Amino acid sequence: MIARYLAPLAKEFKGAFELTDDTAVIRSESGFDIVATVDTLVAGVHFLNSDPPTSIGKKLMRVNLSDLAAMGAKPHLYLLSLALSADTDEAWVADFVAGLAEDQEAFGIKLAGGDTVSTPGPTTLTLTALGQVAAGKALLRSGAEIGDAIYVTGTIGDGALGLAVLNGGCASLSKHMREHLVARYRLPEPRVSFGGDLIGLAHAAIDVSDGLVADLGHLAEQSGRSASVDVARIPLSEAAETACAEDRDLLTAILTGGDDYELLFTGDAAKEAEILSRAKRCNLRLTRIGRIGEGEGVHILDKEGTQVSLDEQGYRHF
Amino acid sequence: MIARYLAPLAKEFKGAFELTDDTAVIRSESGFDIVATVDTLVAGVHFLNSDPPTSIGKKLMRVNLSDLAAMGAKPHLYLLSLALSADTDEAWVADFVAGLAEDQEAFGIKLAGGDTVSTPGPTTLTLTALGQVAAGKALLRSGAEIGDAIYVTGTIGDGALGLAVLNGGCASLSKHMREHLVARYRLPEPRVSFGGDLIGLAHAAIDVSDGLVADLGHLAEQSGRSASVDVARIPLSEAAETACAEDRDLLTAILTGGDDYELLFTGDAAKEAEILSRAKRCNLRLTRIGRIGEGEGVHILDKEGTQVSLDEQGYRHF
Repeated sequence: MIARYLAPLAKEFKGAFELTDDTAVIRSESGFDIVATVDTLVAGVHFLNSDPPTSIGKKLMRVNLSDLAAMGAKPHLYLLSLALSADTDEAWVADFVAGLAEDQEAFGIKLAGGDTVSTPGPTTLTLTALGQVAAGKALLRSGAEIGDAIYVTGTIGDGALGLAVLNGGCASLSKHMREHLVARYRLPEPRVSFGGDLIGLAHAAIDVSDGLVADLGHLAEQSGRSASVDVARIPLSEAAETACAEDRDLLTAILTGGDDYELLFTGDAAKEAEILSRAKRCNLRLTRIGRIGEGEGVHILDKEGTQVSLDEQGYRHF
Repeated sequence: MIARYLAPLAKEFKGAFELTDDTAVIRSESGFDIVATVDTLVAGVHFLNSDPPTSIGKKLMRVNLSDLAAMGAKPHLYLLSLALSADTDEAWVADFVAGLAEDQEAFGIKLAGGDTVSTPGPTTLTLTALGQVAAGKALLRSGAEIGDAIYVTGTIGDGALGLAVLNGGCASLSKHMREHLVARYRLPEPRVSFGGDLIGLAHAAIDVSDGLVADLGHLAEQSGRSASVDVARIPLSEAAETACAEDRDLLTAILTGGDDYELLFTGDAAKEAEILSRAKRCNLRLTRIGRIGEGEGVHILDKEGTQVSLDEQGYRHF
């Protein structure tokens, strides 16, 4: 299986020795730091057994690429550890690998090594991604300054609503809209290219994986600041907008649901023109959603500027 | 759990940001290559649920360190991905982490980042280890030359017999001997320091994880050579020797069972004095067990130099 399906993914990286060695050798490049991240996806927890294996491969890759993007790092190499359940057949492996292969091409990353075992439990997939960034220039969560504008790429909440659709929710939406949301859940678009463009421009950055409010909370905490978000400015897709118009309570899922894999960052509002022009160059929607302030915590403000609270019953005024 | 148990493991490595970031930043050091390896251990497959969590943490670390040792690389950083079963309690995590912490000290490696998820299946532990080696100097599997002597560190077969003891086998051995074998199964000793000493001296190297015969086969194949082993020269512990004297068929388990994590390498027999002196400096038993030749495959020779065959019924003459 390794020789047939995985070795071809490693053939362009000499240090992988065609996966005949347990270990990869990576030449250091002076002037660059290495950025490393690892994510594990468990069948039935982080993806559905009914998801197409091609999109599982891509999702495994992309959740890691999104971490690299938030650092402004360029994808370089990855290591793969596959714990495959006993009922995994060759067709599943072939499709899963096809997804990885397509994303290797799309994002310029190569397989460097890995481990393959079988498990009596659910298939458990772990990918360690290594990226490169100019020495000392990696974007961090900790650099937000008082007065910074807060920006987010793309649209928020589609991943959470896509999962809801797969679980039978949002049934009143059109087929087209439901498909859009499911596609966004299954196949995040890591903002790799734009992440690199933000080096020297963003003060702090994170990718939205745990949910907008939680991840903005991480950024604010690491920066020792507070963050205010104008809820009316949160960018929604047409499908999410329609779903929300029908059921206002979905806004909580959108703000806290996670699986967005968009970039959330802060920067000097005086440089907004340059920030927006870089996003435009990447064909990327970019929205200013709030501001960094003194103190701590994340404050969600409604149209009138009144702070609202999020909970499982939906959002409401204090 | 991350802040309480895992962040302390990362506190000495600044690029881990106290695990508050999903990603680690590793400063490149010019003149060094990075060696990367990943291994996954599944509960009930690669370790027993009855194994002490401290030794599970150490084993996870050490199987990876053994891969670095076989490259001659110095351990540097690791990433950890823990998929924990629902019944994992805090005491298990505390003990598991204590094992990692002890081995960080012992081997000079630090936690750089990771991911922690829960799984409906068995606990599945993945560790990605990064090491450093002088640029272009990593030991490979592919450098064995015709006429090279084949050496192995320590003793072979204890891991396989230790697993047999845990499964109720080798019952006639003394308690002390059974404990020795179980300890060797649970706690491999990666030959990290000696691996570094072999740079510039070994022509090809591998660690014995799949079993002596299989791993020597990998080395021979990657080198495009054959390997002959004198079975009487295979170094055995007192316990393994005793077990074998009672049941000659155990020799097959010893030669093919794996989980040894000793170093197997080839070198110029004319430099044997230097090779042995470096092993002595590391307090390491080292045994010359055979020779590299033309052709392909692994040939096991008995005392009379006659080739024997290994199979599940034990070993026998052709």
